[in-house]
This record gives sequence, C-alpha cells and structure tokens, in this order.
Amino acid sequence: MAIRLHELCGSDPARVFSPYCWRARMALLHKGLPHESLPWRFTEKAAIADAGTDKVPVLRDGTRTVHDSWAILEYLEDRYPGRASLFGGEGGRALARFVAHWADTVLNPAIAALIVSDIPALLDPGDRAYFVRTREARFGKPLAEVTAGREERLEGFRAGLRPLRLTLSDRPFLHGATPGAGDYIAFSGFQWARVVSPLPLLAPDDVLHAWRGRLLDAFGGVARAVPAAERG
Amino acid sequence: MAIRLHELCGSDPARVFSPYCWRARMALLHKGLPHESLPWRFTEKAAIADAGTDKVPVLRDGTRTVHDSWAILEYLEDRYPGRASLFGGEGGRALARFVAHWADTVLNPAIAALIVSDIPALLDPGDRAYFVRTREARFGKPLAEVTAGREERLEGFRAGLRPLRLTLSDRPFLHGATPGAGDYIAFSGFQWARVVSPLPLLAPDDVLHAWRGRLLDAFGGVARAVPAAERG
Repeated sequence: MAIRLHELCGSDPARVFSPYCWRARMALLHKGLPHESLPWRFTEKAAIADAGTDKVPVLRDGTRTVHDSWAILEYLEDRYPGRASLFGGEGGRALARFVAHWADTVLNPAIAALIVSDIPALLDPGDRAYFVRTREARFGKPLAEVTAGREERLEGFRAGLRPLRLTLSDRPFLHGATPGAGDYIAFSGFQWARVVSPLPLLAPDDVLHAWRGRLLDAFGGVARAVPAAERG
Repeated sequence: MAIRLHELCGSDPARVFSPYCWRARMALLHKGLPHESLPWRFTEKAAIADAGTDKVPVLRDGTRTVHDSWAILEYLEDRYPGRASLFGGEGGRALARFVAHWADTVLNPAIAALIVSDIPALLDPGDRAYFVRTREARFGKPLAEVTAGREERLEGFRAGLRPLRLTLSDRPFLHGATPGAGDYIAFSGFQWARVVSPLPLLAPDDVLHAWRGRLLDAFGGVARAVPAAERG
C-alpha cells in the first residue's frame, strides 16, 4: 500500500496549507516515495486519534504511523536510506533541527502575525469556528487585530529573514546545489502564506523570492500547482 | 612549522575575545591540530596586510594564509579530512553556514548591544581610541548609551535564544553527542561576552548555561582558562 499523509486543507481539498504538512510532503517528494494525500480538517480529530495526536501531519506507511513533522522527516530518512538523503549526513540532521526550531519560533510566528486573519475564509464552517476560537485564544485578540497594519510591518519582517537571505546569497538552496530538509522546513512557511494570503511576503527582487520559486517548481511543480491566494 | 593563528586580544595577550577568532581556535582544537597563537591588536594592521585583510582571525599554515572565520573552518575541514569532522558531512557544512549567518546577524549583534561598552577598558590605549571611534560610528552613539539599561533587556535577549535552547533540550551539543562547527559558531559569541563583560548573559538554570560549560571544559578547558570578566 502506498504511503498516506493526512494533510490539513481548506474547504477546497487541494488547498493544503499547513507549513508542517508541507515539510512532510516535500520530504516524501525528495525521497521519490509514491504517496497519497488524505485531506484532513481541523475538526476531524477522530481520523487521527489512533496516532495519539490531534494534529497533522500524520504519516501512515504500512503498519507504521508517525506524527509530528520532524519525526516524519527522521522516519523517512532512516526507513529509506537508499533514496536521496534529506539531511546530507549526521551534521545536517543535527543542524536541520536548529533550522526547524528557528522556523517554529521565529519565522512561522512572524508569518502568522501577517496572515492569520486570511485563513478563516478558506475553511469549512465547522473548521472556521474552531480556528477562530482557538487562534483568538492563542493571540489574545481578534485575528483582524493581529494582522492590522501588516503592510507597514512587511519591511521589518523581511529584515528578519537575513540569516536565510545571506545563506542563499551564494548558492541556489540552503543545502547547496540541490535542496534538502533545511530548505523544505523554511520553504513551508512561505508556501503556507502563499496559499492562504494575498499579501506578498517576499519582494520580487529578493534572492528568497527566487529560492522559493525553485522550490515551487521542484518535483514537477507540485507546490506551485496548489491554488494560491497570493497577489501577483 | 606549526599552524599559527592571529587572534585579537586585549592589553593582556591571554585575553583573546573576538567571537570570530574563537570560532577558528575551537575548530583547530576540534581537529587536534597543534597551533600557536599570535596575539594581535586592532591597530596592528601591518602584521596581516599580506593576507589581504585588516581583520582577524588570520590562519597561517605553511605557505597558506587564510582569513575570515568561515573560510578558515572550510579550509581546515578540507585540508585535514582525516581528522574529526567539523561539519559532519555536506549537509552539516551547508546548514552550519545558516547557523553562522544567524549568529552574525542576530546573536552577536544582540550580545554587542549588551556588552560593547565593557570592551575599551581591556584594550591598550591605542586600540582603545580606535575601538571607541569605530564602534561609536557604527552604533551612531556613545557606547555607554548602547548598553544602557541592559539588565532590563536581559530577559528579552534570553527569549531570543529559543532556537538554540530548544535544539539543546534533548542533546548535549547542537551537533548531538559531540560538538561540531555549529556549536563553536554559537558558543563563540558567549565566550566573547564572558571574557569582556561582568554581565551574566545566561541564567544558571538555562540549558544553554550547561552547554556553554561543556564547551568551556572541552579540549582540556582551553576556553575556560582565558581570564573572564563575567561575574559569578
């Protein structure tokens, strides 16, 4: 049986948007592993309860079920060592963990503060109520207030991308000539934004824009094929 | 002839404090390469002019001269492949570059804003005048103003260390069981602060404090043996 991946989507099942699901999907594509997407919505907790979690991504590979995007990356690397390496060795695996923690605590929260109010409109009514309630509790204010004045905050957001930008100043991917786990981890936040929000996070002349484009085009353009909300 | 390393120091030649010099020194220790320290001061530009730079570290290995701490790390890895790997493979080399850019643009500037006013007192008079003039030009204000209110800013600084802290929550070093280039790059900023400033950047119960301690103790305690200004 092919590998299956529970992935968060909007009312349109093609609109897969969770950055953590994108990490897992890009890893499957990198490994060249055939897989099937199982569209999942926030309120479908029962479908993944057996995995011991209420969050996606959840990967099912034969009798194995793995949740948490980092665990899925490590699982795929270890289970399929003969395929293209995600990490490029043990040092890459170790430092990809740092990239993931940077994305989780710096990049993705900064993106959320710019785009979170765009998400409810894409969701089914049941998911919409769940999403608004849980996220407003997390931010402590209405989502429209979270993203208020975001056009004026774009410049500061872009300045915070310097570690990524400088790394990409002399190579096409964070991993060098070809992409790896670090690229997918960082890219997934931008893909999230692109799918749900009209706000263009990256200026067209930014090396990060070109890097994102290379990842949108990778693997036959799987990421680019997802319906996008981004303008331009 | 042994490898030689031009390293920035205070009026006390033992007080080597540049974070970039510490990256190179820790890399030499990791590789187990005998080397000699050449104490260097800001105004001794002539001693390194042949290297095509006015900044240390500068490494001299036989007829080879290498400047820039990142170039030195790559040089040592490539020139001495039979010794312990600094990067742990090509993925580690690639992502260590991201760690270095994060340290250069986020970590070290944040540390500088907390400690830079402590540095002039450690310098020779000639260096002191040079340092104050160039750094005040860079910050656009007196150094005492740069670090004013720093005790109140410590909490925010520590919060910004979350990507490091989370990575170290389940392993002794960023690279795993043993340290590597990523550890030395990040550690060197803390060693800089420890040598020049009484301000304790890390709380004693922080996993980062324990991690720093392991690196201070590494290689026979070379980093811990340097005279420190840090309190406690």
